[in-house]
Amino acid sequence: MAEFYQYPNELRDACRRGEFVQSTAAQTPGYEQANIIILPQEFADDFARYCELNPQACPLLSRSKPGDPSLPELGAGIDIRFDLPRYRVFEEGRHHGDYGDVSSFWRDDLVTFALGCSLSFEKALEDAGVNLRYFRTGEGCAAYRSTLATTPAGPFHGDMVVTFRAVPKDQVELSEETTLRYPLSHGGPVHMGSPAEIGIGSLRHNIDGIGCSDLRENELAVFWACGVTAIDAVQNAAPDLAITHAPAHMLVTDREAYRATP
Amino acid sequence: MAEFYQYPNELRDACRRGEFVQSTAAQTPGYEQANIIILPQEFADDFARYCELNPQACPLLSRSKPGDPSLPELGAGIDIRFDLPRYRVFEEGRHHGDYGDVSSFWRDDLVTFALGCSLSFEKALEDAGVNLRYFRTGEGCAAYRSTLATTPAGPFHGDMVVTFRAVPKDQVELSEETTLRYPLSHGGPVHMGSPAEIGIGSLRHNIDGIGCSDLRENELAVFWACGVTAIDAVQNAAPDLAITHAPAHMLVTDREAYRATP
Repeated sequence: MAEFYQYPNELRDACRRGEFVQSTAAQTPGYEQANIIILPQEFADDFARYCELNPQACPLLSRSKPGDPSLPELGAGIDIRFDLPRYRVFEEGRHHGDYGDVSSFWRDDLVTFALGCSLSFEKALEDAGVNLRYFRTGEGCAAYRSTLATTPAGPFHGDMVVTFRAVPKDQVELSEETTLRYPLSHGGPVHMGSPAEIGIGSLRHNIDGIGCSDLRENELAVFWACGVTAIDAVQNAAPDLAITHAPAHMLVTDREAYRATP
Repeated sequence: MAEFYQYPNELRDACRRGEFVQSTAAQTPGYEQANIIILPQEFADDFARYCELNPQACPLLSRSKPGDPSLPELGAGIDIRFDLPRYRVFEEGRHHGDYGDVSSFWRDDLVTFALGCSLSFEKALEDAGVNLRYFRTGEGCAAYRSTLATTPAGPFHGDMVVTFRAVPKDQVELSEETTLRYPLSHGGPVHMGSPAEIGIGSLRHNIDGIGCSDLRENELAVFWACGVTAIDAVQNAAPDLAITHAPAHMLVTDREAYRATP
Protein backbone atom coordinates (compact mmCIF):
# COMPACT_ATOMS: atom_id res chain seq x y z
CA MET A 1 0.00 0.00 0.00
CA ALA A 2 1.21 3.43 -0.93
CA GLU A 3 2.04 6.16 1.55
CA PHE A 4 -0.87 8.58 1.69
CA TYR A 5 -0.89 12.40 1.73
CA GLN A 6 -3.95 14.56 2.35
CA TYR A 7 -2.35 17.92 1.58
CA PRO A 8 -0.49 18.93 -1.61
CA ASN A 9 2.22 21.00 0.09
CA GLU A 10 3.16 18.05 2.31
CA LEU A 11 3.40 15.71 -0.67
CA ARG A 12 5.49 18.25 -2.61
CA ASP A 13 7.81 18.65 0.38
CA ALA A 14 8.25 14.87 0.50
CA CYS A 15 9.14 14.91 -3.22
CA ARG A 16 11.65 17.68 -2.60
CA ARG A 17 13.30 15.63 0.15
CA GLY A 18 13.40 12.64 -2.21
CA GLU A 19 11.13 10.64 0.08
CA PHE A 20 8.05 10.35 -2.14
CA VAL A 21 8.93 8.72 -5.47
CA GLN A 22 5.76 6.87 -6.46
CA SER A 23 2.64 7.54 -8.55
CA THR A 24 0.38 10.34 -7.29
CA ALA A 25 -2.78 8.35 -8.10
CA ALA A 26 -5.29 8.58 -5.23
CA GLN A 27 -3.08 11.13 -3.42
CA THR A 28 -4.37 14.49 -2.09
CA PRO A 29 -7.98 13.72 -3.14
CA GLY A 30 -9.95 16.74 -4.31
CA TYR A 31 -6.92 18.75 -5.36
CA GLU A 32 -5.99 19.40 -8.97
CA GLN A 33 -3.08 17.34 -10.23
CA ALA A 34 -1.10 18.56 -13.22
CA ASN A 35 0.89 17.25 -16.16
CA ILE A 36 4.17 19.13 -16.47
CA ILE A 37 5.89 19.94 -19.77
CA ILE A 38 9.08 22.02 -19.72
CA LEU A 39 10.42 23.30 -23.04
CA PRO A 40 12.95 25.77 -24.43
CA GLN A 41 11.36 29.17 -24.97
CA GLU A 42 11.63 28.94 -28.77
CA PHE A 43 9.10 26.06 -28.66
CA ALA A 44 6.74 27.63 -26.13
CA ASP A 45 4.36 29.51 -28.43
CA ASP A 46 3.85 26.55 -30.74
CA PHE A 47 3.20 24.32 -27.76
CA ALA A 48 0.69 26.79 -26.28
CA ARG A 49 -1.07 26.75 -29.65
CA TYR A 50 -1.08 22.91 -29.62
CA CYS A 51 -2.80 23.02 -26.22
CA GLU A 52 -5.30 25.57 -27.50
CA LEU A 53 -6.16 23.36 -30.49
CA ASN A 54 -6.46 20.22 -28.35
CA PRO A 55 -8.11 21.43 -25.16
CA GLN A 56 -9.52 18.09 -24.11
CA ALA A 57 -6.13 16.34 -24.15
CA CYS A 58 -4.06 19.39 -23.16
CA PRO A 59 -6.09 21.73 -20.89
CA LEU A 60 -3.66 24.52 -20.04
CA LEU A 61 -3.62 25.49 -16.35
CA SER A 62 -0.50 27.63 -16.17
CA ARG A 63 2.56 28.83 -18.10
CA SER A 64 5.70 30.12 -16.38
CA LYS A 65 8.09 32.91 -17.28
CA PRO A 66 11.29 31.65 -18.96
CA GLY A 67 13.79 30.33 -16.43
CA ASP A 68 11.40 30.79 -13.51
CA PRO A 69 10.88 27.49 -11.64
CA SER A 70 7.90 28.74 -9.62
CA LEU A 71 4.20 28.35 -10.46
CA PRO A 72 2.54 30.73 -8.00
CA GLU A 73 -0.95 30.19 -9.43
CA LEU A 74 -0.77 26.51 -8.56
CA GLY A 75 0.89 26.57 -5.16
CA ALA A 76 2.95 28.70 -2.81
CA GLY A 77 6.64 27.88 -2.93
CA ILE A 78 6.51 25.41 -5.81
CA ASP A 79 9.95 24.76 -7.29
CA ILE A 80 9.27 22.75 -10.41
CA ARG A 81 12.84 21.39 -10.46
CA PHE A 82 12.26 19.31 -7.32
CA ASP A 83 8.56 19.01 -6.47
CA LEU A 84 7.48 16.08 -8.64
CA PRO A 85 8.06 12.47 -7.57
CA ARG A 86 9.60 11.52 -10.90
CA TYR A 87 10.62 13.29 -14.12
CA ARG A 88 11.32 12.15 -17.66
CA VAL A 89 14.04 13.91 -19.67
CA PHE A 90 14.10 13.92 -23.49
CA GLU A 91 17.00 15.03 -25.67
CA GLU A 92 16.19 15.65 -29.37
CA GLY A 93 12.91 13.87 -28.69
CA ARG A 94 14.59 10.72 -27.40
CA HIS A 95 13.99 9.40 -23.89
CA HIS A 96 17.23 10.13 -22.05
CA GLY A 97 16.27 9.01 -18.56
CA ASP A 98 13.94 9.26 -15.57
CA TYR A 99 15.05 11.35 -12.58
CA GLY A 100 14.01 12.27 -9.06
CA ASP A 101 14.97 15.92 -9.57
CA VAL A 102 16.00 17.93 -12.63
CA SER A 103 17.91 20.82 -11.08
CA SER A 104 21.08 19.90 -12.98
CA PHE A 105 19.23 20.13 -16.31
CA TRP A 106 17.78 23.58 -15.57
CA ARG A 107 18.39 26.46 -18.00
CA ASP A 108 17.36 30.10 -18.17
CA ASP A 109 15.33 29.58 -21.34
CA LEU A 110 13.06 26.84 -19.99
CA VAL A 111 9.31 27.48 -19.86
CA THR A 112 7.02 25.32 -17.73
CA PHE A 113 3.50 24.37 -18.79
CA ALA A 114 1.02 22.76 -16.38
CA LEU A 115 -1.91 20.85 -17.92
CA GLY A 116 -4.94 19.39 -16.15
CA CYS A 117 -5.07 15.70 -15.24
CA SER A 118 -7.90 13.23 -14.84
CA LEU A 119 -6.57 12.03 -11.48
CA SER A 120 -8.11 15.30 -10.27
CA PHE A 121 -11.70 14.14 -10.77
CA GLU A 122 -11.44 10.67 -9.27
CA LYS A 123 -12.60 11.87 -5.88
CA ALA A 124 -15.59 13.53 -7.57
CA LEU A 125 -16.42 10.19 -9.23
CA GLU A 126 -16.21 8.47 -5.86
CA ASP A 127 -18.30 11.16 -4.19
CA ALA A 128 -20.91 10.81 -6.95
CA GLY A 129 -21.13 7.12 -6.09
CA VAL A 130 -19.20 5.68 -9.04
CA ASN A 131 -17.48 2.52 -7.85
CA LEU A 132 -13.85 2.77 -9.03
CA ARG A 133 -12.58 -0.57 -7.72
CA TYR A 134 -8.95 0.53 -7.55
CA PHE A 135 -9.34 4.02 -6.05
CA ARG A 136 -9.60 2.98 -2.40
CA THR A 137 -6.55 0.74 -2.59
CA GLY A 138 -4.38 3.63 -3.78
CA GLU A 139 -3.94 2.18 -7.24
CA GLY A 140 -4.59 4.46 -10.22
CA CYS A 141 -6.16 4.34 -13.64
CA ALA A 142 -4.14 2.92 -16.53
CA ALA A 143 -2.99 4.89 -19.62
CA TYR A 144 -2.69 3.78 -23.26
CA ARG A 145 -1.58 5.08 -26.62
CA SER A 146 -4.65 5.31 -28.88
CA THR A 147 -5.08 6.02 -32.59
CA LEU A 148 -7.34 9.03 -31.96
CA ALA A 149 -5.76 11.96 -33.81
CA THR A 150 -4.86 15.38 -32.40
CA THR A 151 -4.62 18.66 -34.32
CA PRO A 152 -0.97 19.60 -35.03
CA ALA A 153 0.61 22.98 -34.26
CA GLY A 154 4.06 23.76 -35.64
CA PRO A 155 6.28 20.74 -34.83
CA PHE A 156 3.83 19.36 -32.22
CA HIS A 157 1.69 16.44 -33.39
CA GLY A 158 0.73 12.87 -32.52
CA ASP A 159 -2.07 10.57 -31.45
CA MET A 160 -4.00 10.88 -28.22
CA VAL A 161 -2.99 9.07 -25.06
CA VAL A 162 -6.00 8.04 -22.98
CA THR A 163 -6.71 6.88 -19.47
CA PHE A 164 -8.91 3.84 -18.92
CA ARG A 165 -11.35 3.21 -16.11
CA ALA A 166 -13.49 0.12 -15.68
CA VAL A 167 -16.91 1.58 -14.83
CA PRO A 168 -19.90 -0.51 -13.66
CA LYS A 169 -22.28 -0.58 -16.65
CA ASP A 170 -25.11 1.05 -14.71
CA GLN A 171 -22.81 3.93 -13.68
CA VAL A 172 -21.40 4.88 -17.09
CA GLU A 173 -23.84 7.74 -17.57
CA LEU A 174 -23.13 9.01 -14.05
CA SER A 175 -19.37 8.93 -14.72
CA GLU A 176 -19.89 10.88 -17.93
CA GLU A 177 -22.09 13.54 -16.29
CA THR A 178 -19.67 13.91 -13.40
CA THR A 179 -16.50 14.33 -15.45
CA LEU A 180 -18.12 16.72 -17.94
CA ARG A 181 -18.09 19.22 -15.06
CA TYR A 182 -14.26 19.12 -15.03
CA PRO A 183 -13.20 20.49 -18.46
CA LEU A 184 -9.77 21.49 -17.14
CA SER A 185 -9.21 17.90 -15.95
CA HIS A 186 -9.93 16.50 -19.47
CA GLY A 187 -13.74 16.65 -19.07
CA GLY A 188 -15.98 13.83 -20.32
CA PRO A 189 -14.93 10.53 -21.92
CA VAL A 190 -13.48 10.38 -25.44
CA HIS A 191 -14.49 6.74 -26.01
CA MET A 192 -16.58 3.99 -24.39
CA GLY A 193 -16.50 0.29 -25.15
CA SER A 194 -14.08 -1.66 -27.34
CA PRO A 195 -10.41 -0.71 -26.73
CA ALA A 196 -9.55 -2.10 -30.18
CA GLU A 197 -11.75 0.52 -31.85
CA ILE A 198 -9.25 3.19 -30.75
CA GLY A 199 -6.19 1.10 -31.52
CA ILE A 200 -5.55 -0.45 -28.11
CA GLY A 201 -4.63 -4.05 -28.86
CA SER A 202 -4.42 -5.24 -25.25
CA LEU A 203 -5.41 -3.67 -21.94
CA ARG A 204 -2.29 -5.33 -20.52
CA HIS A 205 -0.09 -2.92 -22.49
CA ASN A 206 -0.75 0.04 -20.22
CA ILE A 207 2.05 2.61 -20.08
CA ASP A 208 4.76 1.60 -17.58
CA GLY A 209 2.39 -1.14 -16.35
CA ILE A 210 0.95 1.47 -13.98
CA GLY A 211 -2.67 1.35 -12.85
CA CYS A 212 -5.61 -0.99 -12.93
CA SER A 213 -5.95 -2.61 -16.39
CA ASP A 214 -8.54 -5.17 -15.36
CA LEU A 215 -12.06 -5.18 -16.90
CA ARG A 216 -14.82 -7.33 -15.41
CA GLU A 217 -18.06 -8.76 -16.82
CA ASN A 218 -20.35 -6.10 -15.35
CA GLU A 219 -18.11 -3.19 -16.37
CA LEU A 220 -17.63 -1.05 -19.47
CA ALA A 221 -14.24 0.32 -20.60
CA VAL A 222 -14.42 4.12 -20.46
CA PHE A 223 -11.58 6.26 -21.81
CA TRP A 224 -10.69 9.87 -21.06
CA ALA A 225 -8.08 12.06 -22.75
CA CYS A 226 -4.70 12.07 -20.96
CA GLY A 227 -1.96 14.70 -20.69
CA VAL A 228 0.68 12.15 -21.71
CA THR A 229 -0.59 13.12 -25.18
CA ALA A 230 1.54 16.24 -24.70
CA ILE A 231 4.63 14.18 -23.87
CA ASP A 232 4.29 12.27 -27.13
CA ALA A 233 3.80 15.52 -29.06
CA VAL A 234 6.98 16.86 -27.43
CA GLN A 235 8.88 13.76 -28.53
CA ASN A 236 7.70 14.40 -32.08
CA ALA A 237 8.72 18.07 -31.90
CA ALA A 238 12.16 16.93 -30.67
CA PRO A 239 13.61 20.04 -28.95
CA ASP A 240 17.22 19.66 -27.82
CA LEU A 241 15.92 19.36 -24.24
CA ALA A 242 12.47 18.68 -22.81
CA ILE A 243 11.53 17.75 -19.26
CA THR A 244 8.16 16.23 -18.33
CA HIS A 245 6.62 14.42 -15.41
CA ALA A 246 6.96 10.63 -15.63
CA PRO A 247 3.53 9.16 -16.46
CA ALA A 248 1.27 9.08 -13.34
CA HIS A 249 3.89 11.01 -11.31
CA MET A 250 2.16 14.40 -11.34
CA LEU A 251 2.54 17.82 -9.76
CA VAL A 252 -0.07 18.04 -6.99
CA THR A 253 -1.33 21.61 -6.81
CA ASP A 254 -2.97 23.64 -4.03
CA ARG A 255 -5.93 24.29 -6.29
CA GLU A 256 -9.13 22.48 -5.37
CA ALA A 257 -10.33 20.46 -8.33
CA TYR A 258 -13.82 21.96 -8.36
CA ARG A 259 -12.26 25.38 -8.91
CA ALA A 260 -10.93 24.04 -12.18
CA THR A 261 -14.49 24.25 -13.50
CA PRO A 262 -14.99 27.66 -15.13
CA MET B 1 20.48 -0.50 1.24
CA ALA B 2 19.50 -2.87 -1.52
CA GLU B 3 18.50 -6.47 -0.97
CA PHE B 4 21.46 -8.70 -1.77
CA TYR B 5 21.59 -11.98 -3.72
CA GLN B 6 24.64 -14.23 -3.94
CA TYR B 7 23.26 -16.67 -6.54
CA PRO B 8 21.83 -15.80 -9.97
CA ASN B 9 19.03 -18.38 -9.93
CA GLU B 10 17.72 -16.99 -6.63
CA LEU B 11 17.74 -13.42 -7.97
CA ARG B 12 15.99 -14.54 -11.19
CA ASP B 13 13.36 -16.37 -9.13
CA ALA B 14 12.78 -13.18 -7.12
CA CYS B 15 12.33 -11.26 -10.40
CA ARG B 16 9.86 -13.87 -11.61
CA ARG B 17 7.81 -13.49 -8.43
CA GLY B 18 7.93 -9.69 -8.90
CA GLU B 19 9.82 -9.26 -5.63
CA PHE B 20 13.12 -7.93 -6.98
CA VAL B 21 12.59 -4.79 -9.07
CA GLN B 22 15.79 -2.80 -8.56
CA SER B 23 19.15 -2.40 -10.32
CA THR B 24 21.34 -5.52 -10.42
CA ALA B 25 24.51 -3.48 -9.70
CA ALA B 26 26.66 -5.25 -7.07
CA GLN B 27 24.34 -8.30 -7.14
CA THR B 28 25.59 -11.90 -7.60
CA PRO B 29 29.25 -10.79 -7.67
CA GLY B 30 31.47 -12.82 -9.97
CA TYR B 31 28.65 -13.91 -12.28
CA GLU B 32 28.19 -12.58 -15.79
CA GLN B 33 25.36 -10.07 -16.13
CA ALA B 34 23.81 -9.49 -19.54
CA ASN B 35 22.13 -6.78 -21.58
CA ILE B 36 18.97 -8.14 -23.21
CA ILE B 37 17.70 -7.05 -26.64
CA ILE B 38 14.60 -8.76 -28.05
CA LEU B 39 13.71 -8.08 -31.68
CA PRO B 40 11.44 -9.38 -34.44
CA GLN B 41 13.20 -12.07 -36.47
CA GLU B 42 13.39 -9.89 -39.59
CA PHE B 43 15.78 -7.56 -37.71
CA ALA B 44 17.87 -10.28 -36.11
CA ASP B 45 20.56 -10.78 -38.74
CA ASP B 46 21.26 -7.05 -39.10
CA PHE B 47 21.47 -6.71 -35.33
CA ALA B 48 23.86 -9.68 -35.06
CA ARG B 49 26.02 -7.96 -37.68
CA TYR B 50 25.89 -4.69 -35.67
CA CYS B 51 27.20 -6.61 -32.64
CA GLU B 52 29.93 -8.22 -34.74
CA LEU B 53 31.06 -4.79 -36.03
CA ASN B 54 30.99 -3.23 -32.54
CA PRO B 55 32.29 -5.98 -30.29
CA GLN B 56 33.46 -3.71 -27.49
CA ALA B 57 30.02 -2.09 -27.02
CA CYS B 58 27.95 -5.15 -28.01
CA PRO B 59 29.78 -8.38 -27.07
CA LEU B 60 27.37 -11.14 -28.09
CA LEU B 61 26.93 -13.88 -25.49
CA SER B 62 23.88 -15.70 -26.81
CA ARG B 63 21.11 -15.61 -29.43
CA SER B 64 17.84 -17.51 -29.01
CA LYS B 65 15.67 -19.34 -31.52
CA PRO B 66 12.66 -17.28 -32.67
CA GLY B 67 9.83 -17.39 -30.15
CA ASP B 68 11.86 -19.39 -27.62
CA PRO B 69 12.05 -17.55 -24.26
CA SER B 70 14.81 -19.78 -22.85
CA LEU B 71 18.56 -19.11 -22.91
CA PRO B 72 20.00 -22.49 -21.87
CA GLU B 73 23.62 -21.39 -22.41
CA LEU B 74 23.21 -18.69 -19.75
CA GLY B 75 21.16 -20.45 -17.09
CA ALA B 76 18.91 -23.43 -16.48
CA GLY B 77 15.23 -22.57 -16.59
CA ILE B 78 15.62 -18.95 -17.72
CA ASP B 79 12.37 -17.53 -19.07
CA ILE B 80 13.34 -14.20 -20.58
CA ARG B 81 9.74 -12.89 -20.35
CA PHE B 82 9.88 -12.78 -16.53
CA ASP B 83 13.44 -13.09 -15.21
CA LEU B 84 14.67 -9.48 -15.39
CA PRO B 85 13.82 -6.93 -12.69
CA ARG B 86 12.65 -4.35 -15.21
CA TYR B 87 12.10 -4.15 -18.97
CA ARG B 88 11.79 -1.31 -21.44
CA VAL B 89 9.39 -1.68 -24.38
CA PHE B 90 9.78 0.30 -27.62
CA GLU B 91 7.21 0.57 -30.40
CA GLU B 92 8.45 1.94 -33.74
CA GLY B 93 11.58 3.00 -31.86
CA ARG B 94 9.65 5.08 -29.33
CA HIS B 95 9.79 4.35 -25.61
CA HIS B 96 6.38 2.87 -24.81
CA GLY B 97 6.89 2.01 -21.16
CA ASP B 98 8.85 0.14 -18.49
CA TYR B 99 7.45 -3.15 -17.17
CA GLY B 100 8.10 -5.80 -14.55
CA ASP B 101 7.32 -8.63 -16.99
CA VAL B 102 6.74 -8.70 -20.74
CA SER B 103 4.76 -11.93 -21.17
CA SER B 104 1.82 -10.02 -22.66
CA PHE B 105 4.07 -8.57 -25.39
CA TRP B 106 5.53 -11.94 -26.40
CA ARG B 107 5.31 -13.12 -30.01
CA ASP B 108 6.47 -16.20 -31.92
CA ASP B 109 8.86 -14.17 -34.08
CA LEU B 110 10.86 -12.57 -31.25
CA VAL B 111 14.58 -13.33 -31.02
CA THR B 112 16.51 -12.66 -27.81
CA PHE B 113 20.09 -11.41 -27.81
CA ALA B 114 22.23 -11.37 -24.64
CA LEU B 115 25.26 -9.04 -24.60
CA GLY B 116 27.99 -8.81 -21.99
CA CYS B 117 27.89 -6.13 -19.28
CA SER B 118 30.58 -4.33 -17.32
CA LEU B 119 28.81 -5.00 -14.02
CA SER B 120 30.30 -8.47 -14.50
CA PHE B 121 33.89 -7.31 -13.90
CA GLU B 122 33.33 -5.13 -10.86
CA LYS B 123 34.12 -7.95 -8.46
CA ALA B 124 37.35 -8.58 -10.40
CA LEU B 125 38.26 -4.90 -9.96
CA GLU B 126 37.58 -5.17 -6.25
CA ASP B 127 39.56 -8.41 -5.99
CA ALA B 128 42.46 -6.77 -7.82
CA GLY B 129 42.43 -4.05 -5.15
CA VAL B 130 40.82 -1.23 -7.13
CA ASN B 131 38.87 0.91 -4.71
CA LEU B 132 35.42 1.42 -6.25
CA ARG B 133 33.87 3.62 -3.58
CA TYR B 134 30.32 2.72 -4.42
CA PHE B 135 30.63 -1.04 -4.91
CA ARG B 136 30.41 -2.08 -1.27
CA THR B 137 27.33 0.06 -0.62
CA GLY B 138 25.42 -1.73 -3.38
CA GLU B 139 25.37 1.32 -5.64
CA GLY B 140 26.45 0.90 -9.25
CA CYS B 141 28.39 2.72 -11.90
CA ALA B 142 26.68 5.49 -13.86
CA ALA B 143 25.97 5.46 -17.62
CA TYR B 144 26.06 8.30 -20.16
CA ARG B 145 25.41 8.96 -23.83
CA SER B 146 28.73 9.83 -25.50
CA THR B 147 29.61 11.13 -28.95
CA LEU B 148 31.89 8.16 -29.71
CA ALA B 149 30.65 6.66 -32.98
CA THR B 150 29.71 3.05 -33.66
CA THR B 151 29.81 1.24 -37.02
CA PRO B 152 26.32 0.93 -38.55
CA ALA B 153 24.77 -2.30 -39.83
CA GLY B 154 21.53 -2.11 -41.80
CA PRO B 155 19.14 0.10 -39.82
CA PHE B 156 21.21 -0.16 -36.60
CA HIS B 157 23.38 2.87 -35.83
CA GLY B 158 24.09 5.43 -33.13
CA ASP B 159 26.66 6.76 -30.70
CA MET B 160 28.21 4.76 -27.90
CA VAL B 161 26.76 4.70 -24.40
CA VAL B 162 29.47 4.40 -21.76
CA THR B 163 29.73 3.54 -18.08
CA PHE B 164 31.73 5.79 -15.78
CA ARG B 165 33.78 4.79 -12.77
CA ALA B 166 35.77 7.14 -10.55
CA VAL B 167 39.11 5.34 -10.18
CA PRO B 168 41.86 6.43 -7.76
CA LYS B 169 44.57 7.95 -9.96
CA ASP B 170 47.20 5.46 -8.82
CA GLN B 171 44.90 2.53 -9.73
CA VAL B 172 43.95 3.53 -13.26
CA GLU B 173 46.52 1.26 -14.86
CA LEU B 174 45.44 -1.63 -12.64
CA SER B 175 41.80 -1.08 -13.61
CA GLU B 176 42.76 -1.09 -17.28
CA GLU B 177 44.83 -4.28 -17.00
CA THR B 178 42.10 -6.02 -15.03
CA THR B 179 39.22 -5.20 -17.36
CA LEU B 180 41.21 -6.03 -20.52
CA ARG B 181 40.92 -9.65 -19.39
CA TYR B 182 37.11 -9.46 -19.78
CA PRO B 183 36.54 -8.82 -23.50
CA LEU B 184 33.00 -10.25 -23.33
CA SER B 185 32.16 -7.78 -20.53
CA HIS B 186 33.26 -4.78 -22.69
CA GLY B 187 36.99 -5.23 -21.97
CA GLY B 188 39.29 -2.25 -21.30
CA PRO B 189 38.30 1.43 -21.07
CA VAL B 190 37.28 3.45 -24.16
CA HIS B 191 38.21 6.80 -22.61
CA MET B 192 40.00 8.24 -19.59
CA GLY B 193 39.89 11.80 -18.31
CA SER B 194 37.67 14.67 -19.44
CA PRO B 195 33.99 13.67 -19.86
CA ALA B 196 33.51 16.69 -22.17
CA GLU B 197 35.98 15.22 -24.68
CA ILE B 198 33.47 12.46 -25.44
CA GLY B 199 30.43 14.75 -25.36
CA ILE B 200 29.35 14.33 -21.75
CA GLY B 201 28.40 17.81 -20.59
CA SER B 202 27.73 16.97 -16.96
CA LEU B 203 28.37 13.87 -14.87
CA ARG B 204 25.06 14.62 -13.16
CA HIS B 205 23.17 13.69 -16.34
CA ASN B 206 23.65 9.96 -15.89
CA ILE B 207 20.95 7.77 -17.44
CA ASP B 208 17.94 7.44 -15.11
CA GLY B 209 20.05 9.06 -12.36
CA ILE B 210 21.29 5.54 -11.53
CA GLY B 211 24.74 4.95 -10.09
CA CYS B 212 27.59 6.92 -8.59
CA SER B 213 28.29 10.07 -10.65
CA ASP B 214 30.64 11.65 -8.13
CA LEU B 215 34.31 12.35 -9.01
CA ARG B 216 36.80 13.32 -6.29
CA GLU B 217 40.11 15.15 -6.37
CA ASN B 218 42.32 12.05 -6.22
CA GLU B 219 40.32 10.18 -8.87
CA LEU B 220 40.29 9.96 -12.67
CA ALA B 221 37.10 9.50 -14.73
CA VAL B 222 37.39 6.17 -16.56
CA PHE B 223 34.81 5.14 -19.15
CA TRP B 224 33.96 1.70 -20.50
CA ALA B 225 31.64 0.78 -23.39
CA CYS B 226 28.09 -0.05 -22.28
CA GLY B 227 25.44 -2.35 -23.74
CA VAL B 228 22.83 0.43 -23.59
CA THR B 229 24.53 1.37 -26.88
CA ALA B 230 22.47 -1.46 -28.36
CA ILE B 231 19.23 -0.04 -26.95
CA ASP B 232 19.89 3.27 -28.68
CA ALA B 233 20.72 1.49 -31.95
CA VAL B 234 17.43 -0.40 -31.64
CA GLN B 235 15.54 2.87 -31.19
CA ASN B 236 17.17 4.14 -34.37
CA ALA B 237 16.27 0.94 -36.26
CA ALA B 238 12.67 1.40 -35.03
CA PRO B 239 11.14 -2.09 -35.36
CA ASP B 240 7.41 -2.26 -34.65
CA LEU B 241 8.26 -3.90 -31.31
CA ALA B 242 11.48 -4.18 -29.32
CA ILE B 243 11.96 -5.26 -25.73
CA THR B 244 15.15 -4.55 -23.76
CA HIS B 245 16.27 -4.57 -20.16
CA ALA B 246 15.81 -1.21 -18.41
CA PRO B 247 19.27 0.36 -17.94
CA ALA B 248 21.13 -1.27 -15.00
CA HIS B 249 18.37 -3.89 -14.58
CA MET B 250 20.20 -6.82 -16.18
CA LEU B 251 19.76 -10.55 -16.65
CA VAL B 252 22.01 -12.25 -14.12
CA THR B 253 23.38 -15.44 -15.67
CA ASP B 254 24.74 -18.67 -14.17
CA ARG B 255 27.99 -18.12 -16.05
CA GLU B 256 30.98 -17.17 -13.95
CA ALA B 257 32.45 -13.94 -15.26
CA TYR B 258 35.97 -15.31 -15.60
CA ARG B 259 34.63 -17.88 -18.06
CA ALA B 260 33.73 -14.98 -20.30
CA THR B 261 37.45 -14.62 -21.03
CA PRO B 262 38.32 -16.73 -24.08
